[in-house]
Amino acid sequence: MKKNLRTIAWQNNAIRLIDQTRLPGELVYCTITDIRRLWQAIKELKVRGAPAIGAAAALGVYLGVRGSKAQDYAAFMRDVSAAAAYLASARPTARNLFWGLERMSAKAASCKGESVAQIKKALLKEALLVIEEDRSCCRSIGRHGSALFKSGDRVLTVCNTGILATIDYGTALGVLYRCKEEGKKLKVFACETRPLLQGARLTTWELSQAGMDATLICDNMAAALMARGMIDKVIAGADRIAANGDTANKIGTYSLAVLAAYHRIPFYIAAPLSTFDTSIADGSSIVIEQRPAAEITTLFYRKKMCADRIKVYNPAFDVTDHRLISAIITEKGVLRPPFRTSIRRVFPGR
Amino acid sequence: MKKNLRTIAWQNNAIRLIDQTRLPGELVYCTITDIRRLWQAIKELKVRGAPAIGAAAALGVYLGVRGSKAQDYAAFMRDVSAAAAYLASARPTARNLFWGLERMSAKAASCKGESVAQIKKALLKEALLVIEEDRSCCRSIGRHGSALFKSGDRVLTVCNTGILATIDYGTALGVLYRCKEEGKKLKVFACETRPLLQGARLTTWELSQAGMDATLICDNMAAALMARGMIDKVIAGADRIAANGDTANKIGTYSLAVLAAYHRIPFYIAAPLSTFDTSIADGSSIVIEQRPAAEITTLFYRKKMCADRIKVYNPAFDVTDHRLISAIITEKGVLRPPFRTSIRRVFPGR
Repeated sequence: MKKNLRTIAWQNNAIRLIDQTRLPGELVYCTITDIRRLWQAIKELKVRGAPAIGAAAALGVYLGVRGSKAQDYAAFMRDVSAAAAYLASARPTARNLFWGLERMSAKAASCKGESVAQIKKALLKEALLVIEEDRSCCRSIGRHGSALFKSGDRVLTVCNTGILATIDYGTALGVLYRCKEEGKKLKVFACETRPLLQGARLTTWELSQAGMDATLICDNMAAALMARGMIDKVIAGADRIAANGDTANKIGTYSLAVLAAYHRIPFYIAAPLSTFDTSIADGSSIVIEQRPAAEITTLFYRKKMCADRIKVYNPAFDVTDHRLISAIITEKGVLRPPFRTSIRRVFPGR
Repeated sequence: MKKNLRTIAWQNNAIRLIDQTRLPGELVYCTITDIRRLWQAIKELKVRGAPAIGAAAALGVYLGVRGSKAQDYAAFMRDVSAAAAYLASARPTARNLFWGLERMSAKAASCKGESVAQIKKALLKEALLVIEEDRSCCRSIGRHGSALFKSGDRVLTVCNTGILATIDYGTALGVLYRCKEEGKKLKVFACETRPLLQGARLTTWELSQAGMDATLICDNMAAALMARGMIDKVIAGADRIAANGDTANKIGTYSLAVLAAYHRIPFYIAAPLSTFDTSIADGSSIVIEQRPAAEITTLFYRKKMCADRIKVYNPAFDVTDHRLISAIITEKGVLRPPFRTSIRRVFPGR
């Protein structure tokens, strides 16, 4: 694996991001020093993947308030809230974005009584902690998840859930990286993941860097592979998981879950606890982001690929019914159905 | 609908084809006067769609033998066989290609005793008859199939099964055109159909020309639409149908059939009898064409969309289990399960 590849880093008082829209063609970093450019980077998917968005947002709150002229706690807290509210408007579905923002707001609130300068310092420290926690969290997910796989398994995955979706390891792909570290030989099939091809562009790039056996397919080929007995397991990430285990993830995930169930293939979700939203009973209230038609109609904004004046429906996510999920792999272990119980067990405070 | 749009025509002693690789950008015709260029046009999908390929191949046999120097029946028949064998090598899956070639060979064989000049004339007449039969056949499919749809239906389709897949009407899309002619208002969802985007490029173009309510989606979105109750019926074409109803069609069709069954949505196939291959008991022996990796990895041979040195699996078709098919719409009526019986009924000679 490419040494020291970091999706998000804090460097020279700025956020340093891999610009994921330029991959696999070029590995380009962008340096972000103000909250507006971070909002844009999230919106335009320069940084994407629920855990990565959460970490970026935590740093973003700090960017948003580090120049605050507030003289007292109350005024500063208003700036923190405004920064968090602004970043929250970038994308609606990934729970980790809101989790990161809430965590920064809670940290600021916990500093009541300290000077504004001290709170700023505490916020930067908190954001850097979020980043470090993601690194160890993903490795725990990998450790727990790898027990579900054995050498020779042919594993189907979707979108990108690796280094680029986190800080430097991954959730679902992290599990597969861990398998490789343990000497298990897997054959990985990556769904290209229309419309923005995160599977083709990002996952094949990562798997290639990692020296793993990878095969690219179009999303509509998954069922045919399953029918031919070419897939043993499916693993995906998550953008938001409800209290009953219903899971929002990249569009196409639900389709794979139905197909896996039909072909009696285990279907796993891998995600950190920061992706869980135990405030919602099930997936029906998850807001699904609708993205611009041009993502589908015009391949990378170059060539128009359909008739003019046609309608387009472009939901960025779908919700997988918890009954289709075999297990959810978290940093606290592998959760099994019934998920309402197993999830409640890892969120004892709720 | 665009008046007089003809996918394939015989004009000035040449085949005149719409070059489907140029749509939706430009409506360009190519004139084909020799069998090699026709073979290439089929291979490169300038003409595609099982019935259109069958009709093109029939004319192609004539192109291949019209300049034959054979002096007697036996020598001429060798030329006919060579032309048919050559065209048969263009693509392996669509039954109609072989049907068209067999029909031409049979016509030549039936002319035993006539002069070579007379047989050539008979072959051109036969190919033109194939074209005319396709036109009326598609209209019969439309008439039978429209009875399965009612105003307000939201219909999902895949690939292109319209004018461009036939001579001038369509199979699955023909059914929807017939519905429109009968005043039924449908809302059509077109799967873009990766990798070559026949749904996005060709079907939205046709539906737009026909003034129909059309919405484009990516293939991986179909399940999410079904789960949201946005789809009432699914209809697809076919490339080869076995004696038990197992149906090979564009990759992704099988996926839609599984998803439709899971969501209890009727799944229809529309195809002429020339697509049936009653010589095979089920779909397991259908040869699935594997197409070049570049169709997936490099968007229209311009921009590389994945890592280098990655493997690619690119089957052009899949096989849908007959148990997932609600009905098969043919020019002889709507066939219902058990298909082995209903298919045998329309092929009484077998």
